[in-house]
Amino acid sequence: MTYFRVDYKNAKKFCEESFIRVGFSEEESQIISDVILLSDLYGIESHGLQRLKMYQDNIKSGLVKVDKKADVVFETPVSGVLDANFSIGHLASHQGMSLAIKKAKTTGVGIVTVRNSNHFGIAGYYSKLACDEGFLGLAFTNSEALMVPTFGILPMLGSNPIACAMPADPYDFFFDASTTVVTRGKLEVYKKLGKPLPKGWAIDQDGNISSDASEIIDNIKEGRGGGILPLGGDNENLGGHKGYGYGVLTEIFSSIISLGMTSNQCLKGDVDGCCHGFIAIDPNIFGDSKLIKDHLSNFLQELRDSPKAQGQDRIYTHGEKEIIAMKDRLDNGIRINEKTMNELYDLASNLNIDIRAYFKERLE
Amino acid sequence: MTYFRVDYKNAKKFCEESFIRVGFSEEESQIISDVILLSDLYGIESHGLQRLKMYQDNIKSGLVKVDKKADVVFETPVSGVLDANFSIGHLASHQGMSLAIKKAKTTGVGIVTVRNSNHFGIAGYYSKLACDEGFLGLAFTNSEALMVPTFGILPMLGSNPIACAMPADPYDFFFDASTTVVTRGKLEVYKKLGKPLPKGWAIDQDGNISSDASEIIDNIKEGRGGGILPLGGDNENLGGHKGYGYGVLTEIFSSIISLGMTSNQCLKGDVDGCCHGFIAIDPNIFGDSKLIKDHLSNFLQELRDSPKAQGQDRIYTHGEKEIIAMKDRLDNGIRINEKTMNELYDLASNLNIDIRAYFKERLE
Repeated sequence: MTYFRVDYKNAKKFCEESFIRVGFSEEESQIISDVILLSDLYGIESHGLQRLKMYQDNIKSGLVKVDKKADVVFETPVSGVLDANFSIGHLASHQGMSLAIKKAKTTGVGIVTVRNSNHFGIAGYYSKLACDEGFLGLAFTNSEALMVPTFGILPMLGSNPIACAMPADPYDFFFDASTTVVTRGKLEVYKKLGKPLPKGWAIDQDGNISSDASEIIDNIKEGRGGGILPLGGDNENLGGHKGYGYGVLTEIFSSIISLGMTSNQCLKGDVDGCCHGFIAIDPNIFGDSKLIKDHLSNFLQELRDSPKAQGQDRIYTHGEKEIIAMKDRLDNGIRINEKTMNELYDLASNLNIDIRAYFKERLE
Repeated sequence: MTYFRVDYKNAKKFCEESFIRVGFSEEESQIISDVILLSDLYGIESHGLQRLKMYQDNIKSGLVKVDKKADVVFETPVSGVLDANFSIGHLASHQGMSLAIKKAKTTGVGIVTVRNSNHFGIAGYYSKLACDEGFLGLAFTNSEALMVPTFGILPMLGSNPIACAMPADPYDFFFDASTTVVTRGKLEVYKKLGKPLPKGWAIDQDGNISSDASEIIDNIKEGRGGGILPLGGDNENLGGHKGYGYGVLTEIFSSIISLGMTSNQCLKGDVDGCCHGFIAIDPNIFGDSKLIKDHLSNFLQELRDSPKAQGQDRIYTHGEKEIIAMKDRLDNGIRINEKTMNELYDLASNLNIDIRAYFKERLE
C-alpha cells in the first residue's frame, strides 16, 4: 500500500472546511477536527482521517444530526448526564469532559455520562483534555456491538475502550485501549491494505478464528454472528472473560448510568445512540499534585529503564509512542494511505472543496 | 489432589480464632476472616484459607504489624488518604472502603487510597461492600512485582487487580480480575497440585514461556527475572500492552496518588508496603438508581440469553459463577485441598487451637 505525507496544519484545515461545508460553525469544526487529527498526529491511523468519509456519510444519511446539540439533563456538584440528541459525538464529548473538568475544579471530582450520541473518535483525546488541566482523566465509550462475550457467538458489546491520562515528565501517561483484542478501525485498515488478520483477533459466524477482515466487518454490519474477541481471547484460559468484564465496566460508565443504549442496541434503527463516560480527578484531593506527578514520572522512568527481554531494546510506557509519532508527523506530515487519499479527493469533490488548496501531498 | 469439604461457619470461626490468638480483637478478626472466607465461598480457592498460612507467617515475621492501625493522613469531602502503617491489609482496606462509602453517602462520590499496607485478600470483597450499599464500587491494589511489562524481563508491576461491583437482579455485577493473565495465587494452587501451567501464563528468567509454577514463583521471590505475563500476552499482537496499561492504571489509583510504594518497591526490605484504591459512587448522582439498576439487570440478562458458541451451553455474566459456588459451599462446605488442610492443622497446633473443635472435614 502506498502512503502519502500531508502537512498537519493543512490537513486539519481541510478537515475543518469539510465540516463547515455541512453546517457546523467554525468553532465546532475546529473541535471535531482537533479530535480527528490528534489521532493522525499520534500515529493512530485507524481513527484519523481514515474515518472522515464515515463521519461525512453519517452526516449525509442523517445518522449524525448537525442541527442538534447536547443538553445537560441531570446534574449534581460532582456529576452530570448529557443527552446528545444524536448530534456528533465529538462535540457532545468535548462538552461532557469540559463539564467534568469544571466540576473537578470545584469539588475535586467530576463524572459525566453522555447518552444518545454518535462516534466520538479516540477516547484518549478526552482523557487528554483533563490531563492538560493537570488532572487524572478517564474516558469510556460503547459503540455498535462487535465484541462477542466469552462463550458467545453474537457481538453484544462494543470495542468499549477505556482511556486514562495523567500528567508526567517527560511524557504524560496516555493509555487508550479497546477492551477487545483490537478495534474495528484496525480491521478497517487491514481491509484497506488487503492484509490477512493475525490469528486470535476475530471469529467468523461459525465461531472459528478468521483472518478475513472484510468478512468480519460485513458479518458485524449484517448481524450474521461472529465478531472481535475480547482482550484475552476466545476462552477463559488466557483471560478472555477479563476483556469481556472490562467491556461491561465500560458499558456501566457509558450506557448504564446514562440510561442510554447498550452496545447491542446501538445502530439498530435510524440512529446510532452510543454512549460515553468522562471522569476528571484533581490529584490535589490526595495531597500535593506536584509530588504525585513526580512519583508517577519516576515510576514510568523505572519501567522504561528496566531490563529488556531478549531481542528487545526498548520498553515503552503508554503515551511515549504517541509523542514519538507526533514529532515525526509535525516534521514530515501525517501519513495517509492511498485508499484514504482517494476517499478524501472524492469527498472534497462532493463538498466542492478544492483539495489542492490544502493538500500538497508527497509520496512517503 | 484430594479435596475436603468443611462447614463454612466453622471454618470461619477457626479462621477468626487464629487471628484472635495472635493479638487481633474479636471484631477485627471477624472482618479479616470475612474477607478470607468470602473468597472460599465464591470458589476463589487461591485467595481463601489457602492463604491463611501466608498471612500468619507474615504476622509472625513482623511484616504485618498487629499493633498498628491505619491513620487518615489527608481528606477532602470526596477523598481520603490512609497510611496503613504496615498493619494488616484487610483492616486498612475495610476502613478505606468504609470511608469512601461514607463520603459517597454525602457527596455522591468517595475515592480513598491506602499506602504502606499489606495483602488485602480479594479486591472484590471491597467493591462488594459498596455494592451492598447500593453503590457502584471499585477496588484496586498493587502488590510485590510479578508482572513483566511488555518487552521486559523483570517483574515491575503486581497482579494489580481491578474489581468492580454494581447492584443488579438476580445477580449483582461482580467483576474481580488481575491485569495479569493469571494471579500468583493461581500459580500457588498449580504448585500445590503439581500441575504444569498452561502455555501463555508466565515466562522464565530467559524470557521463554514456562509451565513450571515452582520455578516462576521462586524466580519472582528471588528477583531472578521472569514472571507472569500481562493480560494479552508477551507482545503487542494480542494486546499485551493493554494488560500492562491496565496494570499502570491500578498503580495510579493505589501507589501513585497515595505517594506509596509502587509494585517494584514492595516487599524489598522488611516491609511489604503495597497500596490500595477504593471508589464508591452513588448511582443517584446520575438519576434514579432504581432505573439504573433495572437497566444493568436487563443488559446482563441479554448477555446471558445471547446465542452461544458451538459446544457452549451457557454465557456467564460476572458474579454469576460466584453465586453458584456460594450456594454449593453453603450447602456442602467450602473446598480445601489436602496440602492446605495440612497447613491448617500445623497452624492450629502452633497456635494451640484444637482444630477438631472446628473442623469435621469430610472427603469430597
